[in-house]
Formats: sequence, C-alpha cells, structure tokens
Amino acid sequence: MTEQEIRSALAQAAGDVREKNPQAPSVTNTVTQDFVANAQLAVGGSATMIYLPDECEQIAATAPAFYINTGTMLPVLAETLPRTAKTLHDNRTPWVLDPVGIGMNGLRTKILSGFKDCKPSIVRGNASEIIALAKLWQLVDDDYAGTIRGVDSTEKVSAAKTAAIALAKFTGGAVAVSGEEDLITDGEQTIICAGGSAMLTKVTGSGCALGGVMAVYAAVANPFTAALTATTAFNLAGMQAAAKSDGPASFKIKFLDALYKLTAQEIADSFRAVGVLDSMLTYTFGMERVKE
Amino acid sequence: MTEQEIRSALAQAAGDVREKNPQAPSVTNTVTQDFVANAQLAVGGSATMIYLPDECEQIAATAPAFYINTGTMLPVLAETLPRTAKTLHDNRTPWVLDPVGIGMNGLRTKILSGFKDCKPSIVRGNASEIIALAKLWQLVDDDYAGTIRGVDSTEKVSAAKTAAIALAKFTGGAVAVSGEEDLITDGEQTIICAGGSAMLTKVTGSGCALGGVMAVYAAVANPFTAALTATTAFNLAGMQAAAKSDGPASFKIKFLDALYKLTAQEIADSFRAVGVLDSMLTYTFGMERVKE
Amino acid sequence: MTEQEIRSALAQAAGDVREKNPQAPSVTNTVTQDFVANAQLAVGGSATMIYLPDECEQIAATAPAFYINTGTMLPVLAETLPRTAKTLHDNRTPWVLDPVGIGMNGLRTKILSGFKDCKPSIVRGNASEIIALAKLWQLVDDDYAGTIRGVDSTEKVSAAKTAAIALAKFTGGAVAVSGEEDLITDGEQTIICAGGSAMLTKVTGSGCALGGVMAVYAAVANPFTAALTATTAFNLAGMQAAAKSDGPASFKIKFLDALYKLTAQEIADSFRAVGVLDSMLTYTFGMERVKE
Repeated sequence: MTEQEIRSALAQAAGDVREKNPQAPSVTNTVTQDFVANAQLAVGGSATMIYLPDECEQIAATAPAFYINTGTMLPVLAETLPRTAKTLHDNRTPWVLDPVGIGMNGLRTKILSGFKDCKPSIVRGNASEIIALAKLWQLVDDDYAGTIRGVDSTEKVSAAKTAAIALAKFTGGAVAVSGEEDLITDGEQTIICAGGSAMLTKVTGSGCALGGVMAVYAAVANPFTAALTATTAFNLAGMQAAAKSDGPASFKIKFLDALYKLTAQEIADSFRAVGVLDSMLTYTFGMERVKE
Repeated sequence: MTEQEIRSALAQAAGDVREKNPQAPSVTNTVTQDFVANAQLAVGGSATMIYLPDECEQIAATAPAFYINTGTMLPVLAETLPRTAKTLHDNRTPWVLDPVGIGMNGLRTKILSGFKDCKPSIVRGNASEIIALAKLWQLVDDDYAGTIRGVDSTEKVSAAKTAAIALAKFTGGAVAVSGEEDLITDGEQTIICAGGSAMLTKVTGSGCALGGVMAVYAAVANPFTAALTATTAFNLAGMQAAAKSDGPASFKIKFLDALYKLTAQEIADSFRAVGVLDSMLTYTFGMERVKE
Repeated sequence: MTEQEIRSALAQAAGDVREKNPQAPSVTNTVTQDFVANAQLAVGGSATMIYLPDECEQIAATAPAFYINTGTMLPVLAETLPRTAKTLHDNRTPWVLDPVGIGMNGLRTKILSGFKDCKPSIVRGNASEIIALAKLWQLVDDDYAGTIRGVDSTEKVSAAKTAAIALAKFTGGAVAVSGEEDLITDGEQTIICAGGSAMLTKVTGSGCALGGVMAVYAAVANPFTAALTATTAFNLAGMQAAAKSDGPASFKIKFLDALYKLTAQEIADSFRAVGVLDSMLTYTFGMERVKE
C-alpha cells in the first residue's frame, strides 16, 4: 500500500466506526476495563466486558469483533478463553489478542499456547510480549533475545521485528508492537509509526486501551488497517494530550477527550509524514517503510 | 404528589444523605465499580463492593440499602446473588436492581428470573433492559417491542413506559428508565425528567453510577423519591458538566465534581421546570406528568 | 531517628524508586486497582495485579516487594492469599497488608487470622481496621475500643495508637494508621504526620493507593521509612491538589499529577515542620514525636 492508500484506508475505518458504532466485546483484565471501555466509546465503538464461558461463546458468535486480554487471569477464564477463541476462529470473527503477563507459568501459558490454533487477527503487545508469544508458538528460535518483567517490556520495539513478522505470517493477520515507536506488520508490509507520548507509559492500561480500540476498528476493516488506524489515532491523541497536560492523570483525561474529538480525516492526515525524512528513511513524525 | 411536594421530598432525601452518610453496599460489575463508588461518595453516601455469598448475606442483613448490578457475571455470583436478594427481601431492605446484560442466556437469565420473588425496590435500566425484564417476569406480552444489543439500549425511553409501569405495579416499588429523557414511575404516578447530557452515554458506567446513587437515596427515602432524587441530581450535574467539558473524560470529572457540590436545595430547585411548557405538556427542562 | 535523619531517609527512598523503577505486584480489590496502579506508576514504581495462586507464588518469590489488600474477596483468594503471604514470609520479601473489610465474617477473617504467621512488613489501615487486626491477632484486649462500619473507620487515628504499636512490635515491621492525621510506628518510634486533605476521603481507594505506594517504597527502604515516605508524599500531593481542585474527581487527577511531579527532595523537605510547635508539641504541618 502506498501512503495515500493507507491514509484512505484509515479514513474509511475511522469513519465507518463513527457511523456504525460497532461492538467489540472483551474478556480483559480487571485493572484497566474502565480505560478500555472508555477508549472504545471515544472512537465511536461500543463496549461489553464479560467472563462466563456460555456468555462469551454466545457473544463471540455474533459480535463483529472481539478483544481478549490475559492481564488478570481468573479461574473461570480457564474455560472461557479457549471456548471463546475457538468460537471466534470458527466464525471467522476478527479478534485481538493482548498477551499481557505472558511468561507467568501455569494456566496462562497453557491458554496462550492453545490460542495458536485460533489464530488471532491482531496480536498486540510490547516488544517483550511479542517475542515471548512467537517463542511460545515456536515461530522463532528459543535463543531469540527478549525477556519479560511483570507486565512491562524490557525490549525495544525493533528487537521484536522478526518475531512480529513471523507471528503475522503464521496468523495471516496483523501484529502490532507498541513502544516508543510502534511497529505494525501483516507479514508482508511493515510500518513503523512515530508520534504518541511517553506519558502513555505512565498511565496504566494504555496498551490495553489500544488493543480494545484495535478490536473496534477490526469490526469494520482488515486487521492491518485496524491496527494502523488505532495506533495512528492513539499517537495523534497522545501528542495532543501531552501538549496540554500537567502529569499522567490529566494526560489520560485529555487523551480520551482528544480521541473522542478526532475526525476520520484528522487521523488519516496525521499519518502523512509531517517532518523531514532523515538518512534512515525515518520521518520525525510519520512512518517508515521497512524493506523485508 | 404535586411538584411542590416532589421538590420537598427531593430536598429531604438529598439533605438526609449528606447528613447521615448512609452505606449502600453493592454487588456490581468489575468495569464501573470505581465510578459507582465515587458517585455514591459524591452525593454523601458510603460505598462497599463485595462478592462472596456469606459476606453479602451478612451485609445485606444490616445495610440500610443495597445495589445489585448484573453487568459482569462471575461464577461466585450464582450463589451470591440469589442469597443476597432473598436476604434483602426478607429484611425489607430497599435494594436497586440494574439488570445489565439481560438477554445473554444461561446463568444471567436464571438469576434475573429468580429476582422476581425478591421484588427489588427500584429497577433501573435503559429502555431495552426494562422491557426485557418485564418480559422475563411475564408482566407484559412476549410480542411487546424492544430488543437488546450488548449493554446498550436500542429503544427510546417512551417505548418502555408500559413495561416500567407493569414492573412497578408488580414490585410495589419504583422503576427508572434512563435515556435521553428519564421515566420514573411507582406504577401510579409517572414522571419524565429532561435535562442531563448526551455525554453521559459516552462515559462507561453512567447508568451504573445512577443506580448506585439511587441505592444511597433509598437508604433514607421511599423508592420513588430515591429514584427521582438521583435522576434529578444526575441531570443537573450532567448539564453543569457538559457546559464546561471538552470531551467525555473531562465531562466525567466535572460531572462528579458537580455532583459533589450540589446542595439539597439546588437538586430540589432544578426539578422545577425552568423552560416553557410546550403543547405536549413537556417542559424543555423539568417534568411531565403522564396521565395513566 | 532525628528529623534530619528521617528527611535523608525519605529523600533516599523516593530517589531510589525514581531511579530503579521497582515492581510491587498486588493482590488487591477490583474496585480501586486502577488508582493503585496509577499511584504506583506516579511515584516511579511498576504495577502488576494478579489473582491465581500459582502466579502469585511465582511472582512473590522474585518481586522486591508486594501489596495485599483484602477489599473484595473472591473465592480463588482463599488459596491465593495464604500461599502468597507464606511465600513472601519465607523469602523475607517486604509486603504491605491492607486489611480492608476486616470484620466481615467467614473467609476474610480466616485469611486475616492466618496472616499473623506471615508477619507483614507494613500494616496499613484506618484506625478501626488497625484496632480490629490487633484484636484478631490477640495483641490487645478484646474490650479495646473501636468498631468497624463497612470499609470506613469510625475511630480517630489516636485511638489506634496502642494497637498500632502492639502490631508493629509483633511483626517487627511498621504500622501506618491513616486518617485526618497519620500515625506511623515501628514499635519504638511513633510519628504523627499532618498534612494531606479531607478530599482524600471523598475519593474511593485513596487508602489502597497509599498502601500500594508503600509497597513500592518497601522495595528499596525499610518498612518504617517506606511507610513514612509514602505518607509524606501523599500528604504533600494531597495539599497541593486540594488547593487547585474543584471537587473530588478533579482532586484525584491533580493529586496523581502532583504525586508524579514530586521530587525526592520536595518529599523530604515537606516532612520538615513548617508551622509553629503548639503546646502539645504538634506542628501545624509536620511531625510529632510521641514518647512511649
């Protein structure tokens, strides 16, 4: 896709969500549900959080998209998550996987392993999480670099490039690595988005909210476009909010307000590089096309 | 009740809560607990959220009011909710039911069906939820209009009028249908409140917070007055906040601040129609007495 | 410790956290997790919330500090909490206990009783909770004053002085009693901190956030210093926020922003009495050394 094609796709996705108000129900962690839901609402989507296997299966069979985040595992999710992911896969419903907390042993590892067969449309995580998932699914070598510490990444986004591409090729969907820069790939095309704000790392749940919003866009667009639209919107809203905030809490408020006010056109326009191309073919704000 | 009697009742309820700081413990969804608790605190009440059957039964036996919201069902609630509702009913403790997510099959339907015997003092929901509950309890015909989509209403408040009145007559309490306008009925008298702000629909948990605040007022007033006081306070605070906010997140902050600052008198006064009566006997801001 | 020694210790602890970004994972209630996590991030720490016994045991064995809050008991915690506390004790990992909801019968009492053998490094609670825990552990007489109402304290901080000292002597750690004034003791030295804001009581989870931040500081400092650093930072940020806020919701935002911006030096300096010593040896803002 050319930059112009990408901008058109972003505008279409962002506009369709505002018009259609699609649902993207979630099984997600208990810590950041409020932020996820409010971010989904802010871009024009609709939010529902559920836990029970029967309910999730029922909703997964009819929702246009779904968000799964493994942040706070609860016993009931041992049954809920595999059944939900299978339903989503069987119904070819687009779904986003946020493998938060990957690396803790036991149930979480078992569930994340099982997701391999259900091929999430979008995998979103920080660099450490993406590398860990690619290892868990044996898509990269075990000695591939990258470690996990709690829910935080210890790796730069670029370190996860090979893992991300391997994951995307395997799922046939998209992979988004969030960090200072964001890497988004469908296995063929890989884009690095700049923008955003370091303040996003000072607010709990920014990544979860991003994943939830990707699911909203996935209800109306292909996984690569959905991941890119959400990332671009977050980066733009993040920059706008950072310019006006006085700390992480006011940043979060201004960020959600900004997300709410972004028009489809503004999101699309913000993707166009506004800075000067440097010798590394990186815009100061914009995108870099990484050649495979 | 005349408008003047209603205003007096609102002032009394709002003032009593500020003075007595009553508890209204909750079994509620995990998504919006923070908003519910902070709204309960803002009007002068006290908040406690619990899940375990023994604890809920213990608290339900002594609390002056209780709030039950079925938004995110968890396995433990299969035992907690029926036992809690029975305890509340046996102790004649006023309690608010927010049947969030009604329409999802299985446990949720079973529990909501069982609540019929425990007669909630106030049922609060959007139009779709109120219609669905009236159908579930077989108080209206199955072909009564109204469908559910996730946790959002697909119906106008007025569409739920018959269902709301049927529910209120059955429970002997009050029913509040939230929407662009709010309909509140005790089965005899039906009032439609205007005011509020569309921004309330852009913030997750506004309805839950309203239900939680109704429970706080139900600790000191009859169900009809409690529902009306909470609704009037939310509508006034919503209008005040909307005038000063820059999007849904700053709206929520200003809304809670406004709720905190409202005096009992301001709540009561705001109930008086401030606009011009139109040909439909609806005030632009105020109330409509719907004749049965 | 002299005032100067205390100020040095506070500066060291606050600075070390900013530099080392230590993790303080939590098993905590579902209501206030967002606030706890954002407060932990604001002071420079890192947050992870978990529920499953295996995961908690794994994390407890490696984390530099841990936070346990019993606010919303869930069935899984019947296994998680005892195993986690034992692991923390066996590994001599500093941990903070916030005995929220003590007084509700059944599982909660059993778990809190069992914690006696695992000796939390810091116990943080309101006066009623501290008194109730000291009674539960039979460290004070049963007829010691103090009652509980839901999650709120009915007692003044000073009423819990004897209970707090008894608890601290037993655990060998520190005890922090939060209230209009805050009492912090290691069983030998007892300090009462003024400052803060009544607004903190209008925001749900202020106490939980304080406990979570104590755990962050406990990762780099001894329990007494950690409790004192967190309390001093909260009191300073609370005063700064109260001066600029318009109600409890804007207060919370400004409070977290202020917490984020506090330097180690500002925290240390704010501990120095800025007011005039009154006849009770109490500074209008500062500290009182209570002689045993």
